[in-house]
Amino acid sequence: MIELWELGGKHDRRYSLYSWRARMALRHKGLPTTFQPVRLTDKAAIAFSGDTTVPVIRDGDTVVRDSWAIATHLEARYPDRPSLFGGPTGQALARFVNDWVDRTVLASAFPAFAFHALELQDEEDRAHFGSLISRVTGQAPEALAAQQPRHLERLARAVDPARATLKRQPFLAGAAPAYADYALFSVFQWGRIIGAPAVLSGEAALQGWFERLLDLHDGHARATPAAW
Amino acid sequence: MIELWELGGKHDRRYSLYSWRARMALRHKGLPTTFQPVRLTDKAAIAFSGDTTVPVIRDGDTVVRDSWAIATHLEARYPDRPSLFGGPTGQALARFVNDWVDRTVLASAFPAFAFHALELQDEEDRAHFGSLISRVTGQAPEALAAQQPRHLERLARAVDPARATLKRQPFLAGAAPAYADYALFSVFQWGRIIGAPAVLSGEAALQGWFERLLDLHDGHARATPAAW
Repeated sequence: MIELWELGGKHDRRYSLYSWRARMALRHKGLPTTFQPVRLTDKAAIAFSGDTTVPVIRDGDTVVRDSWAIATHLEARYPDRPSLFGGPTGQALARFVNDWVDRTVLASAFPAFAFHALELQDEEDRAHFGSLISRVTGQAPEALAAQQPRHLERLARAVDPARATLKRQPFLAGAAPAYADYALFSVFQWGRIIGAPAVLSGEAALQGWFERLLDLHDGHARATPAAW
Repeated sequence: MIELWELGGKHDRRYSLYSWRARMALRHKGLPTTFQPVRLTDKAAIAFSGDTTVPVIRDGDTVVRDSWAIATHLEARYPDRPSLFGGPTGQALARFVNDWVDRTVLASAFPAFAFHALELQDEEDRAHFGSLISRVTGQAPEALAAQQPRHLERLARAVDPARATLKRQPFLAGAAPAYADYALFSVFQWGRIIGAPAVLSGEAALQGWFERLLDLHDGHARATPAAW
């Protein structure tokens, strides 16, 4: 049994974007997992990992933190289970897609969505999370709420390459989903859980892809408590 | 012997960005090729292809146009030669990288670079190319020249994911180059040929990658007539 530590908020919302990459990777490999919610300010809960950020997994005697490191760990340790990458070239290009999500997609998705997660915080976590948002974006949450339309427009432009690709194939990774899909999916699943606008609705290619990922692995991602 | 039709300008500058993807794909497969320059307004030269755009290849009895279609044709017809994609997942993700280059990178690289290619046009092609630039960008070439610093800044942000990936691995496709690399390379090779600013110099990861691609296949890309 693998254990995964991830952020948990009010109403059992598991709103850690990076942990969703690890969740989907674990389900892709078909590995039984228990999920441990951690409050944002409860760093003691994951001190054993040597760092203060989730996701962290414990797989037997091995502790791995960071979503990309978890994915490559799972691929190397469980090579006979369904591949997350489809070979070395696929893994290298998934690394690029992961960087594209973190650098280009989140550059607009984080300021557009993050303040919605404030509602899910306990009183003590709320101030901490507000400061985190301000530190990352340079803006107070109230200012981000006012600028949301502009950031949503930027986000729509940022995902334009995925829009083009998904008109021609059902998943970024081709006929079947793989880690590159989970990297992009994590952003919109995070938005869905915290109650950000459903920006993909009305976009046939992207919305169809998102629904397919929600259905995957017995509807694992659809079943989690979410705002919509 | 495969024949490739591509744009040719003054001083034998082969400045078609998409044709460079086909060139590198052909060299990757080690296929002997003859290169046929076509003037921008000389559509009669490639009328046999059923369209008016390059690249076009003739491979035996088969005519293929469009750089992506050429790559997939070569991969399917010459499966025993070095792979352009590294398997189905790699091919699907290369499609995404190709779309990312066309949608996100070129959204700033085209307005930043294209007007430099005016200098390479014969008198009759020059007006045609000027209109093409204005149609695509909504701006006259003179206006684009004035806005170049802004578009170069946007371009630097657009390639940020590649910058991150190439700090960790020598090529987008991993330890060895593949089609995804050629898609991004084509933009900067185009800039080098037409005399756009050398925007990658001073960026260790991106510049190192670009130099490795110029050296590849016996320095094929480095040997072509270029501005720098």
